[in-house]
Amino acid sequence: MWDGRLLRVDAREQAMINEEHRPEIGESFPVHAYYSDNQKVRIHSRIHYHSYYELVLVCHGNCDLMVHYELNAMVAGDMAVLPDKSIHSSFCPPGEDTQVLVVQFMPDFVYNGTLDTVDSRYMAAFFNSLRMKRHALFQTGEDLAMLQDLIWKLLREYQEKRMGYTVYLRAYIGMIIAYLIRRLFRNEEELINYLRDYHRIEEAVSFIEKNHREAITLAMAANQANLTYNYFSTIFHKITGHTFTEYLNLIRVREFERIMLGGGNSVSEAATAAGFDNISNFNRVYRNLRKSSPTQVIQGLRVAKS
Amino acid sequence: MWDGRLLRVDAREQAMINEEHRPEIGESFPVHAYYSDNQKVRIHSRIHYHSYYELVLVCHGNCDLMVHYELNAMVAGDMAVLPDKSIHSSFCPPGEDTQVLVVQFMPDFVYNGTLDTVDSRYMAAFFNSLRMKRHALFQTGEDLAMLQDLIWKLLREYQEKRMGYTVYLRAYIGMIIAYLIRRLFRNEEELINYLRDYHRIEEAVSFIEKNHREAITLAMAANQANLTYNYFSTIFHKITGHTFTEYLNLIRVREFERIMLGGGNSVSEAATAAGFDNISNFNRVYRNLRKSSPTQVIQGLRVAKS
Repeated sequence: MWDGRLLRVDAREQAMINEEHRPEIGESFPVHAYYSDNQKVRIHSRIHYHSYYELVLVCHGNCDLMVHYELNAMVAGDMAVLPDKSIHSSFCPPGEDTQVLVVQFMPDFVYNGTLDTVDSRYMAAFFNSLRMKRHALFQTGEDLAMLQDLIWKLLREYQEKRMGYTVYLRAYIGMIIAYLIRRLFRNEEELINYLRDYHRIEEAVSFIEKNHREAITLAMAANQANLTYNYFSTIFHKITGHTFTEYLNLIRVREFERIMLGGGNSVSEAATAAGFDNISNFNRVYRNLRKSSPTQVIQGLRVAKS
Repeated sequence: MWDGRLLRVDAREQAMINEEHRPEIGESFPVHAYYSDNQKVRIHSRIHYHSYYELVLVCHGNCDLMVHYELNAMVAGDMAVLPDKSIHSSFCPPGEDTQVLVVQFMPDFVYNGTLDTVDSRYMAAFFNSLRMKRHALFQTGEDLAMLQDLIWKLLREYQEKRMGYTVYLRAYIGMIIAYLIRRLFRNEEELINYLRDYHRIEEAVSFIEKNHREAITLAMAANQANLTYNYFSTIFHKITGHTFTEYLNLIRVREFERIMLGGGNSVSEAATAAGFDNISNFNRVYRNLRKSSPTQVIQGLRVAKS
C-alpha cells in the first residue's frame, strides 16, 4: 500500500515534505479538532508534518496510518498519538465506513516546560517519551466510550466557541493527556525511572547525532553518558526503541539521503561521507531499513521533492 | 447567629484573624479537597482566611457561611466560591445532616497571569471578579449532579494519588472554573465589557484606598480614571458592588478599626484620622455598616485578637 517514497525522515529532511498549514492552529490559536466520516469526506492525507501534536481516535471501521516509514493498520478503538514534527500520512479506501475523531494541539498550550509545577514530571515524561517514540498507538478497549465522549465534548466546545470555551479545551486536553500518561507508564516508579534514564541518554543521543560521520562505538557513547557499557546499552534501547547500532545506522542512512538530495551524485561517496566504512555494508544496511535500493529511494524522494 | 465580632475585614486587618495553615496546600502542593458529613465531623470553622481559593458545594442539608460580615444561608445545591484572603467562617448546628464537598486551590495552579494565552481573558475575568466581589454564591440547580460527579472524581484522584493525578486535578479544576465563568458572565460581550470596566476602575479604587484620609470626592476619583462623572459612578458600582460613598465609608471604617486596635484610645481622634469630618457623621455611618456601636465592635475585636 505504501511505496518506497514513504521514508522515515528526521527534522533535517522535513523541508522535502509538505508542511501542513492550518490558519487556525499555531501560537495564536493552539487547538483544532474535527470529526471525519470517510463516506462523506475521504480520509486520505498526503505525507506531511506539522508543529502540533495530533491524536487520532478510530471510532468505527479502519484506517491505515503511516508514521516515519512504519505502517499502522488501525481499527475501531485504536488511538494514535503523534508528536510534533512527526512525518505521517493516512489512508482509507473510498466507500469504507470509517469514522475518526481528531484533536490537534500545540504542546505549550498544556505544558510550559520552564515552570516547575506539581504536574511537570508527568508532562515531561509524556512529551519526552512521545517525541522519542515518534508515535504511540493504544487500544482503548473499554475506555473507548469514555474517550469518545470526552473528545465529542471537546469538539462541541471547539465548534460552538461559546464564551470561556478555551478553558474547557485546555481542561479536556488535560484529561486526555492524564489518561494517556497512565497508558504509557504503569506506575510512579516506572515514570520516575523513565525520566532518569531519558536524561541520562539525552546527551549520548545528541553525541551520536553530532558524530555519526566518525567511527563511533557504543563504548564511546556510554563513556559520554558516564554509564557502564551494559547499563547504557539497556537504557538506550529502552528509551530510543533501537539498539545503538540500529540507531547509528538510521542516522547515517538519513544523512546519506540528505546528501544525495542536496545534489550528491555518487552513492559510494555519499555513503562514506555519512559514516559508512564500506559500500557493501552500506547496501546491506540500507536495504534492511528501507526495503528498497538506495537508487530507487532517492529517485522517489526527488519526485516527492519536485 | 453571628455576633458583632464577625467583621468585614480587609488585608491590612488580617493579622488579627487566624490564618489557616494546611501543610499540604501552598506553593509545593497547590490543591486540597475533602468531603464533610456534619453527622460525623461537625461542620464548624472559626473565622479565618487563607491564601488559596475555596469552593464549597452543599450536597445535602444546609450550612451558614459568613463572608466579610455577610451571612449566607446555604442550602443543598448552593455553591460558594471564596477568593484568596477572604475572611470567612462556617456554621452548621450539631446533628444536622449536612454534606459538603470542598475544593481548595492556589490560583496560580490554573492561571499564570504573566503569560498571554487564549484563555487569559476568561481566567482574568474569573479571578478579578471574584476578588472584587470577595465571594460568589451560585444555585447549581440541574447542574448539581454534574458538579458533584466532577468534584467526586477530583476528590478520588486527590485521595488515591495515583501516578499522573496532578494532571487530572488541574483538568478537573479547569472544568469547574469553565463552568463558573459561564455562571458569572452571560456572554463574550459582557465579559469583555467587564474586563474593560475593571481596568478603568482599578486605578480609581487604589486612589481611594491611598487617599481616604483626605476629603476626596467622586468627581476627583472620576477625574483620576479619566471618565465622566456619570459613567464612572455607574461602572464603579457595577465592579465594586458599592456606590462611591459606601465604598469610601467602608475603607474609612476599616482604617478607624485598625487605628483603635493598634493602640488608639480616642474614638473621635481615630475617626478624624481615618477621614471622617465629624463625629456624628462617623457614628451614623458606623452603626449603619456594623449594626453595632464602635465601642462594642472594638471590644469584640480586641477579644478576638487576644
